[in-house]
Amino acid sequence: MDMERVYNFSAGPSQLPIEVLERAQREMLCYGDSGMSVMEMSHRSPEFEEILHSAEQLLRELMDIPSNYKILFLQGGASTQFAAIPLNLLSDHKCADYVLSGQFSKKAAQEAKKYGDIATAASSAGAMPTFSTVPELKKQDIRPDADYVHICYNNTIYGTKFPSVPDTGSIPLVADMSSCILSEPVDVSKFALIYAGAQKNVAPAGLTIVIIRDDLIGNARPDTPAMLDYKLMAENDSMYNTPPCWCIYMAKLVFEWILSIGGLEEMKRRNEKKASYLYDYLDGQVYYTAPVDKKCRSMMNVVFTTGDQAFDKKFVSEAAEFGLKNLKGHRSVGGMRASIYNAMPLEGVEKLVAFMKKFAAENPKVDG
Amino acid sequence: MDMERVYNFSAGPSQLPIEVLERAQREMLCYGDSGMSVMEMSHRSPEFEEILHSAEQLLRELMDIPSNYKILFLQGGASTQFAAIPLNLLSDHKCADYVLSGQFSKKAAQEAKKYGDIATAASSAGAMPTFSTVPELKKQDIRPDADYVHICYNNTIYGTKFPSVPDTGSIPLVADMSSCILSEPVDVSKFALIYAGAQKNVAPAGLTIVIIRDDLIGNARPDTPAMLDYKLMAENDSMYNTPPCWCIYMAKLVFEWILSIGGLEEMKRRNEKKASYLYDYLDGQVYYTAPVDKKCRSMMNVVFTTGDQAFDKKFVSEAAEFGLKNLKGHRSVGGMRASIYNAMPLEGVEKLVAFMKKFAAENPKVDG
Repeated sequence: MDMERVYNFSAGPSQLPIEVLERAQREMLCYGDSGMSVMEMSHRSPEFEEILHSAEQLLRELMDIPSNYKILFLQGGASTQFAAIPLNLLSDHKCADYVLSGQFSKKAAQEAKKYGDIATAASSAGAMPTFSTVPELKKQDIRPDADYVHICYNNTIYGTKFPSVPDTGSIPLVADMSSCILSEPVDVSKFALIYAGAQKNVAPAGLTIVIIRDDLIGNARPDTPAMLDYKLMAENDSMYNTPPCWCIYMAKLVFEWILSIGGLEEMKRRNEKKASYLYDYLDGQVYYTAPVDKKCRSMMNVVFTTGDQAFDKKFVSEAAEFGLKNLKGHRSVGGMRASIYNAMPLEGVEKLVAFMKKFAAENPKVDG
Repeated sequence: MDMERVYNFSAGPSQLPIEVLERAQREMLCYGDSGMSVMEMSHRSPEFEEILHSAEQLLRELMDIPSNYKILFLQGGASTQFAAIPLNLLSDHKCADYVLSGQFSKKAAQEAKKYGDIATAASSAGAMPTFSTVPELKKQDIRPDADYVHICYNNTIYGTKFPSVPDTGSIPLVADMSSCILSEPVDVSKFALIYAGAQKNVAPAGLTIVIIRDDLIGNARPDTPAMLDYKLMAENDSMYNTPPCWCIYMAKLVFEWILSIGGLEEMKRRNEKKASYLYDYLDGQVYYTAPVDKKCRSMMNVVFTTGDQAFDKKFVSEAAEFGLKNLKGHRSVGGMRASIYNAMPLEGVEKLVAFMKKFAAENPKVDG
């Protein structure tokens, strides 16, 4: 097959490291000497148990996850966690505080309202444009009896990220890291629970990672669906039922790839280099506008616009012909969005900036 | 890579058609002219929407699914449906009847008890050995106000299957078909809801198929997690959040493969031939025993034993060396189990029977 791979700026599912795809392709019909594909393997086989165990150990090493945290490999995406978190973490007085910094944190709060008294501790909905910054979370805005505080650490749609981990004191901090997990080192001990859909920085869609401090396990509401009960999942090492084996295998290959390049410090260096390359260009010209508050800029999702809807549309379409795909911004924001996750090489960003320059030169704005 | 594929008799995840694996391998780094893997594709891209739409249409065609049934591609396995079914189908008086024919139907009933008044309409737990037959469901044993009756149509662990679809009159019939879906034609209109984990006859683990009559959609309990609410899933065509894209793609390839060989009539002919080959051998000798009630024998999971634990162990181990893998029975049953799903070719079963003959000759039983 004639293969011409593009640079894929999709917000997720998104580009995977080519080395990982090539290895998975080689092993696809026959994994090791098992005589079968990982897709065909019993989840109770020694071969798969080794894959699952390695994946967990590699993730623990990469993120330096303390031993009092459990790692769960689940299904259902972050949206399932939006329910699982209140079902497992709310105590009898059922009260939690959410920070609203975009659509997914709003969705998380909305789902949690089915199960308890959910308040907004801080919100950047009123920013101009909406959610173009991340709100400051003040300690006095957290209810002292809150069971937890929930944040979305990186906001895929709006291209924002918390500049640092908010201090919630003794109140457990829960973070959706779907679009930034493994992009840089984080101090896991500052969080009570970290969760992430895998389809941006980890693996194909269909896997959700939950990293949870073990004292928070075991308090699920009695009518919690078994598959959403962290205790059952932890006791069974994510094998209460058949797990998403192929995605876990792909995640393991991605973890090995990150380790092979030097771990999260090197990953961060590469990601900063890519993001700076793009943001520096944006800051040094006037044709494109980057609406996001500079101190909250995401390293993963870079939002920009020509300021003209017709030009934006033309940009996205011509970029695709140029081998730069999926640059259209989310419908609620418009404009363009370049998602430059771990697997996007610097060359992809260089090619994007070159195209941006060319497009600006070829499409002058008549008025202003 | 030197590839020596085995015959994989795993109960699930299980063997996939080699043609499907080879095609997926070819397309793995670049699907069509998309320039990327299906694993990297935005679920909102035209390419993936076409895959999802095709998968749905192909399944509708294969199973002759009436237009008043919705097809959902979900995550979380049958175990998630054990909760979703009562959460969506129980009415205000919350009452449903379950037929117990094995461990999974017991688990389904146990989970449902979190949400309503669940009764056992029939059970074969008392059979000798336990669950070696499927109970007869008498209409008078169904409560007239039951919201639904639940059955597990094929019992993977015990190797049994309902000989025909039970008649529940006007009470909706819900069936777990995880281990027999697509093995033969079924009259979908006799069921209110059919569900199946994909990892036996359809695709890699991580996809769950739900086929539901549309009048049963829209009655979920208010605190049902969004991801378990059939209405939200149906309204969003299984794309409320990112679906398990790779598994859906693999399912589509499997559907195409079944159509290419002649659809479910031909699939049934092949499956009957394989199962008969094995059962006929079992019935014509005395070395091995098949404990299952003949009128309830599964066409997919064939359970047998030498009657001697040491011989059973030796059998499983030597068979694996012979390229016949995963023949160990479930721990609750012991002995052997050959799962001969759609993708198992007749040659695999012929090779198994040849090995069984050889093993019997080489390992005579001293007493009896």
